[in-house]
Amino acid sequence: MKSADQAKFRRKALPVPEAQAIVLPYAKETESETVPLPEALGRILAERVTAPHAYPHFRRSGMDGFAILSRDTVGCHSEHPVFLEVVDEIPAGSVPTVKLKPGQAARIMTGAKVPDEADAVVMFEMTESIIREGKPYIQLIREIESGKNITPVGLELSEGDVILEPGRRLSAGELSVLATFGIHRVPVKKRPRVAVFSTGSELLRIDEPLQDGRIRNSNTYMLYSQIFEAGGEPILLEAIEDDLTQAKAQVEAAIANYDLVVTTGGVSVGNYDIMADLLSSDSVEMLFNKVTMRPGSVTSAAVKDGKLLFALSGNPGACFVGFELFVRPAIGRMMGVPKPFLPELTAELARPYRKINNFTRFVRGRLEVRKGKLYAIPAELDESGVMITIKDSDALIVIPPSNTGMQAGEQVTVLKLPGSDF
Amino acid sequence: MKSADQAKFRRKALPVPEAQAIVLPYAKETESETVPLPEALGRILAERVTAPHAYPHFRRSGMDGFAILSRDTVGCHSEHPVFLEVVDEIPAGSVPTVKLKPGQAARIMTGAKVPDEADAVVMFEMTESIIREGKPYIQLIREIESGKNITPVGLELSEGDVILEPGRRLSAGELSVLATFGIHRVPVKKRPRVAVFSTGSELLRIDEPLQDGRIRNSNTYMLYSQIFEAGGEPILLEAIEDDLTQAKAQVEAAIANYDLVVTTGGVSVGNYDIMADLLSSDSVEMLFNKVTMRPGSVTSAAVKDGKLLFALSGNPGACFVGFELFVRPAIGRMMGVPKPFLPELTAELARPYRKINNFTRFVRGRLEVRKGKLYAIPAELDESGVMITIKDSDALIVIPPSNTGMQAGEQVTVLKLPGSDF
Repeated sequence: MKSADQAKFRRKALPVPEAQAIVLPYAKETESETVPLPEALGRILAERVTAPHAYPHFRRSGMDGFAILSRDTVGCHSEHPVFLEVVDEIPAGSVPTVKLKPGQAARIMTGAKVPDEADAVVMFEMTESIIREGKPYIQLIREIESGKNITPVGLELSEGDVILEPGRRLSAGELSVLATFGIHRVPVKKRPRVAVFSTGSELLRIDEPLQDGRIRNSNTYMLYSQIFEAGGEPILLEAIEDDLTQAKAQVEAAIANYDLVVTTGGVSVGNYDIMADLLSSDSVEMLFNKVTMRPGSVTSAAVKDGKLLFALSGNPGACFVGFELFVRPAIGRMMGVPKPFLPELTAELARPYRKINNFTRFVRGRLEVRKGKLYAIPAELDESGVMITIKDSDALIVIPPSNTGMQAGEQVTVLKLPGSDF
Repeated sequence: MKSADQAKFRRKALPVPEAQAIVLPYAKETESETVPLPEALGRILAERVTAPHAYPHFRRSGMDGFAILSRDTVGCHSEHPVFLEVVDEIPAGSVPTVKLKPGQAARIMTGAKVPDEADAVVMFEMTESIIREGKPYIQLIREIESGKNITPVGLELSEGDVILEPGRRLSAGELSVLATFGIHRVPVKKRPRVAVFSTGSELLRIDEPLQDGRIRNSNTYMLYSQIFEAGGEPILLEAIEDDLTQAKAQVEAAIANYDLVVTTGGVSVGNYDIMADLLSSDSVEMLFNKVTMRPGSVTSAAVKDGKLLFALSGNPGACFVGFELFVRPAIGRMMGVPKPFLPELTAELARPYRKINNFTRFVRGRLEVRKGKLYAIPAELDESGVMITIKDSDALIVIPPSNTGMQAGEQVTVLKLPGSDF
């Protein structure tokens, strides 16, 4: 075993995609559970859903009007109107009670079932109602084409059609479809339970008064939000102690009790970097402890008993990026999301980015569409330690390693952040 | 008073922006409440937040290394190294205990407070540690510029700077800022309580077996989702009865008990369109009952006792659009959101849209960025009655009135739907 002290400095840096690929196979899928339809909102579907019947499942009127036999209107015009006897009235939800014969029509409402014999619905406004020999008739002055205003059976879906695939996030449109097919109890993936630890004796609780040299613990609440928005269930634990034996015990207990563990801070090369020590120990199997990215090059991952431990930087900007690139995809994959990474778009850099770096930079920035073109605007303050610009970011702008920085107008890849205003 | 029957047909159609402008002044702001920080996630901030202190509030080391007086390194190079005595060690969270004199340095960790006398931090890796006469020294072989690796007080924020404005949705970045400033109890707007009614005897409950001519009530669950995602608290009520006196009583009770009422169905010209009858009655003050848009031209709004009632179409597509254009902005404004409408972008139409219409169409569609350009792809099935394409929509594509439809490549305005995958 290498000494922990040496290992802190001698780190093999992996490119982001390689580090992501190492982690993902350890993201074990959570179990499924069945919840009432309204509670399925925002959850991830656990099973494929197919249409148990065609939709619509009956020939539906698209209009308020009259169901007719279109051949009755052949040759009809204002000089030669056609008169049809109204023999039935079909509100939505009812079924026709009369078999239509030539020369007859049925009053029908939007959404109601069209009589089998009818092949068209004529709009109410295109008819005139009259009474002849005490019987109700309508007068038509135009030919009506067959099929007019009738939604055929199965227009939207045939029986057995795949409606939703597993791994899909359920929103308004999905709940609407599930309700339509009577799927009132929905199989969804359990939310991964994600334990969050902070480290560092500089951290004050958020309800403590300010002290010189110390800062309040903001990363924990940022991670809480990110985990929640990613679909996980965040569990905020006490801070990790500055003693390796105790720290090991805390992390091991969390690994045993939860699905995933995330820590912030203590991964650098300082004398008090407890997570770096822990990751180099035999307590866990280290997957990587350096990534060729900025901010967050010290982002580390390990596995124990088949569960993932992410040790993120204590710098707010680096912690945020580390979560988005590594933890969010892991949480997504645990719920079977097929594409758990941030969506990648191409945009034009709206202003120059001057910083040079030998690692890939993930620069916080805003997105804007101007006349159909997508622009990425890097934040003015994007240092690893900067917290204030996180709230204004729509995306991470990917700046490849460069000696010169990038010019305004150059094409960049951006990773769109979920839940942003854009 | 006009007869209800006549009023159903003689409707004055308003353009969407005009109808939106009529509604918004009736969206009364909800009260504020104070919640613990984690519960503020996703809520709308009720008050302006300013920085109670500068941030950072002390000169912070950006590196693990040594705090030094930069003038000690003047003229230093590999042939003429400089030796500095290490007289203090400052972990993050501690304050310096020794006043640095020329020729001295302090071991310092990332995030720790830099001694007042020091004006630079040199990276640990750029130093060599040695012992001279039993005392610890570092050897430097490069000049260090003043200010190096020190984050100045107030780099991100000065005391009194505005951090967050009221009406802002609180996400990970906002919670991080609030935590940083110790705002552990957060003033947020109360969620508007939104009552939802369905109408129509064709509707089956979602747990009922299918029946000929009838459909399951899917709009209620779609509205539930849309209200929830808009920040409201949806309350699903029993269906509205097909009897005007009873319907009035139900709606009036809901108006009295909740902040906003939304109904779906019964706004057309059919014989059973109870909401159209109710809106033309003296029970409520009608604001509009027709809008020059498709789908959803029958979308109606009324006000009673200063509270809004939206009567949306029973057609799923029209109900969805009516909510996004009218109800979502009302819910947003009730929580003080400054821009409560769907964000408007310009995109290029990716395929032709052939349908002609004299009203503006809001066509469901997907958005795609290809090489930095934004494309809008209209759904194949966008009829008012179609439900299945709602789930696949990122935006509403605005197609102005036209006799010819639109060509692929033309510029269109799109209204981005919140919570879409795009």
